[in-house]
Amino acid sequence: MQLNYANMLNTPQTGIQITEAEVQAQLPGVKAIIEALNKGEGDNQDRGVPMLGWQTYARELTAADIQRIQETAQGLAARCDIIFIIGIGGSYLGPKAVIEALYGKNYNDLLKTKIYFLGCDTDPEFYAHCLQIAADKNAGAIVISKSGTTTEPAIAFRFAKQLIAKKQGPLAKDYIIAVTDARKGALRQAADAEGYASFVIPDNIGGRFSVITPVGLVPIAAAGLDIAEYIRGYVDARADIDSPDPEYNPAAIYALLRFLAWQKGAAVEYQVTNSAFFESSIAWTMQLEPESEGHQGHGLHVVPAVFPRDLHSIGQLIQQGPRNLIEIATKILKPRVDLEVPEFADNTDELNYIRQNKLTLRDINGMTIDGPLAAHYAAGVPNMTIELEALTPFYLGKYHYMLMKATAIQGYLLGHNPFIQPGVQFWKDRLFAMAGKPGYEKQHQEYLAARQKASAQHSVGG
Amino acid sequence: MQLNYANMLNTPQTGIQITEAEVQAQLPGVKAIIEALNKGEGDNQDRGVPMLGWQTYARELTAADIQRIQETAQGLAARCDIIFIIGIGGSYLGPKAVIEALYGKNYNDLLKTKIYFLGCDTDPEFYAHCLQIAADKNAGAIVISKSGTTTEPAIAFRFAKQLIAKKQGPLAKDYIIAVTDARKGALRQAADAEGYASFVIPDNIGGRFSVITPVGLVPIAAAGLDIAEYIRGYVDARADIDSPDPEYNPAAIYALLRFLAWQKGAAVEYQVTNSAFFESSIAWTMQLEPESEGHQGHGLHVVPAVFPRDLHSIGQLIQQGPRNLIEIATKILKPRVDLEVPEFADNTDELNYIRQNKLTLRDINGMTIDGPLAAHYAAGVPNMTIELEALTPFYLGKYHYMLMKATAIQGYLLGHNPFIQPGVQFWKDRLFAMAGKPGYEKQHQEYLAARQKASAQHSVGG
Repeated sequence: MQLNYANMLNTPQTGIQITEAEVQAQLPGVKAIIEALNKGEGDNQDRGVPMLGWQTYARELTAADIQRIQETAQGLAARCDIIFIIGIGGSYLGPKAVIEALYGKNYNDLLKTKIYFLGCDTDPEFYAHCLQIAADKNAGAIVISKSGTTTEPAIAFRFAKQLIAKKQGPLAKDYIIAVTDARKGALRQAADAEGYASFVIPDNIGGRFSVITPVGLVPIAAAGLDIAEYIRGYVDARADIDSPDPEYNPAAIYALLRFLAWQKGAAVEYQVTNSAFFESSIAWTMQLEPESEGHQGHGLHVVPAVFPRDLHSIGQLIQQGPRNLIEIATKILKPRVDLEVPEFADNTDELNYIRQNKLTLRDINGMTIDGPLAAHYAAGVPNMTIELEALTPFYLGKYHYMLMKATAIQGYLLGHNPFIQPGVQFWKDRLFAMAGKPGYEKQHQEYLAARQKASAQHSVGG
Repeated sequence: MQLNYANMLNTPQTGIQITEAEVQAQLPGVKAIIEALNKGEGDNQDRGVPMLGWQTYARELTAADIQRIQETAQGLAARCDIIFIIGIGGSYLGPKAVIEALYGKNYNDLLKTKIYFLGCDTDPEFYAHCLQIAADKNAGAIVISKSGTTTEPAIAFRFAKQLIAKKQGPLAKDYIIAVTDARKGALRQAADAEGYASFVIPDNIGGRFSVITPVGLVPIAAAGLDIAEYIRGYVDARADIDSPDPEYNPAAIYALLRFLAWQKGAAVEYQVTNSAFFESSIAWTMQLEPESEGHQGHGLHVVPAVFPRDLHSIGQLIQQGPRNLIEIATKILKPRVDLEVPEFADNTDELNYIRQNKLTLRDINGMTIDGPLAAHYAAGVPNMTIELEALTPFYLGKYHYMLMKATAIQGYLLGHNPFIQPGVQFWKDRLFAMAGKPGYEKQHQEYLAARQKASAQHSVGG
């Protein structure tokens, strides 16, 4: 895993400008931040707990821990035709990213036990689809929630539970795995009362940093993937990523360059890739970064893009639109397979040259990152590239740990705690108020009154 | 279809500010733009052709045209286990949006003839996946390309053709439909020589406006959907959308408010929805708007979001991040199904109140748009809502026509031709130069020389 950032510096006049000297000037500060993070110091608490457990969790996992996750999850998969993974935010984005990176977006084409992520939507059409697919099948659930009362996953769990109970009767409990708090909350209570297999979400790791915990590991293992290799990626990455010398630490340079770009007026970051399997990995990053940075008016908006496909749409705006953006590419160096473009006697489409020039599909796909980044830089878009050797669990582990550390460093550079999310908590409470949950009577009345006052003016169309 | 825009005006002090008076002041100009568009006037040419055919195409289609598309596409589907839809940019985003809106993202769970979009990626891992899925199956292809030489879809068509020829031998031509130019280009030549069924991409409709042509209609029909209803949506929408009175025209108000927001410093537009089936519709909009606006330094970056899921991630940044954004929601008023949240004797998750308060899943899902938009407005994020009655072909047709017209109006407000895409053409040529296509020898040598000079400094990580 390597970070190439030559294109972040000395952008041609039109774009965000960062110089080598500005980078150098910040390095001592970044070094101090890394040292503070490594020691667990700084503004990093949520509800009284320092939220830095993701720095050490991977190496604290024992072989027995890993084996229990592997066996429990695979045991569930063996009993099920379908598993619903029920979680929202960090409780589905991490496992979805890993499963899609390894099997592709059409992972259910390949998996014997199909996987559906249910707890993040409330759309009745999507629920109806899932219930139709699961009808008469052996369905199971991995339900992931610290509290057990967040509305969206709690609703999903009710539907799943009802379906499983109908099919399995008294054996239903063997079709459910809970990932939740060690001691408190509604899901812990249900797991203990009903006898579900359960795993613990540690108190000192927040949702968007939780893919290294059972939140990520249990679903990943249920999909048949090698979690030991994924964990090994985190541990292996430490030599670089925990290094207090920023010049050898890609997480430090990544964070510092994003911070400088933001300071100099960048509004938007394009997160791009040349892997069709990496879309959900970008979705994971789209939680990690904005939820950690988007406080007190800070933060970059993140636009996801997959090349080459998006070069034929938003590529226009990247090339010639406003110059208030940076671009961060994740390039997969060695896809696990490569293919030759077929050669045809009939060459009306003029493609025979590709093979004659000794280029494979991998070469062409590599050009779809290298070419645009050079062109975008020349047009005033600073950019940097994370090179990942391959989409394997090991390299995904390294990548996740790198971005987590970078996000933590970034928060300290911005001068606020990157481990809280009051704006998200606000939504959880707001939904309780709107729906009229017991205990929220006063807020519900206020909501109803405000709704009645809302203007019916300013609408157009029939 | 209705546009509610009260929340675009008089934002609380922190965000982008637009007043009613500013809207009123622009209405005469917008009226003149609509009248010019309706008459086909203005800066709207590409390669010498006025690109306004999408305004009239739907009503020019005859019953016989529609029947031929329907029968040819469904005939192909009847012969195939799998159809590859091969196109990039506007040649896949439109049909994908409609198919997903009607069947959901997991459409292949429901379709007898599975659909894979192949021509927009060059990732060998994705190709390998598709070839594995299609092995030994009866595969077909709908290949969509004006020129037939754009690298990405041309490569895909070679793979598909090889696969089909291997299985079907001399009957292969019956498994391919071409959608291409009427007279010229490599794909037209191949279609005529090989005897593929073929349909015409009109000269006066650009890629991002082409979903109403055979580019969209053939794949949509192959998926078994009612294209006549979709076309009827366009025709029906004209009463509002072609109205020269902006105050009755949602496309006009939509365009004007986006323009004013951009003029006043908005950098980003969040395109949000509360439908899990609408993600690819947003992807379609993410081509239409940025590719039309992103010229000469103009344009809003577009971030896609699905609520409630993304409220638990980027929701933090929308609520408390920088105030340089607007939000545009598409709300589906009546999902085609509704569900009751199951009631349990054991209420540890505290959800029984939902049913006791006579709320269904549809009600909860509606709150996931209404609640956040009110809260974001209060926090300085102007927003407006497109209300779609339901996700049916008819309403999707209305929606597409509305956004196309709005995009055209927007281009005229910005003062540039919204129907060209030099930045995208740049990429097509650049890839030829990189890969060394015959005819691009000089550019290829320049590319090789530049690559050799490129700095190996500024990389970090092992």
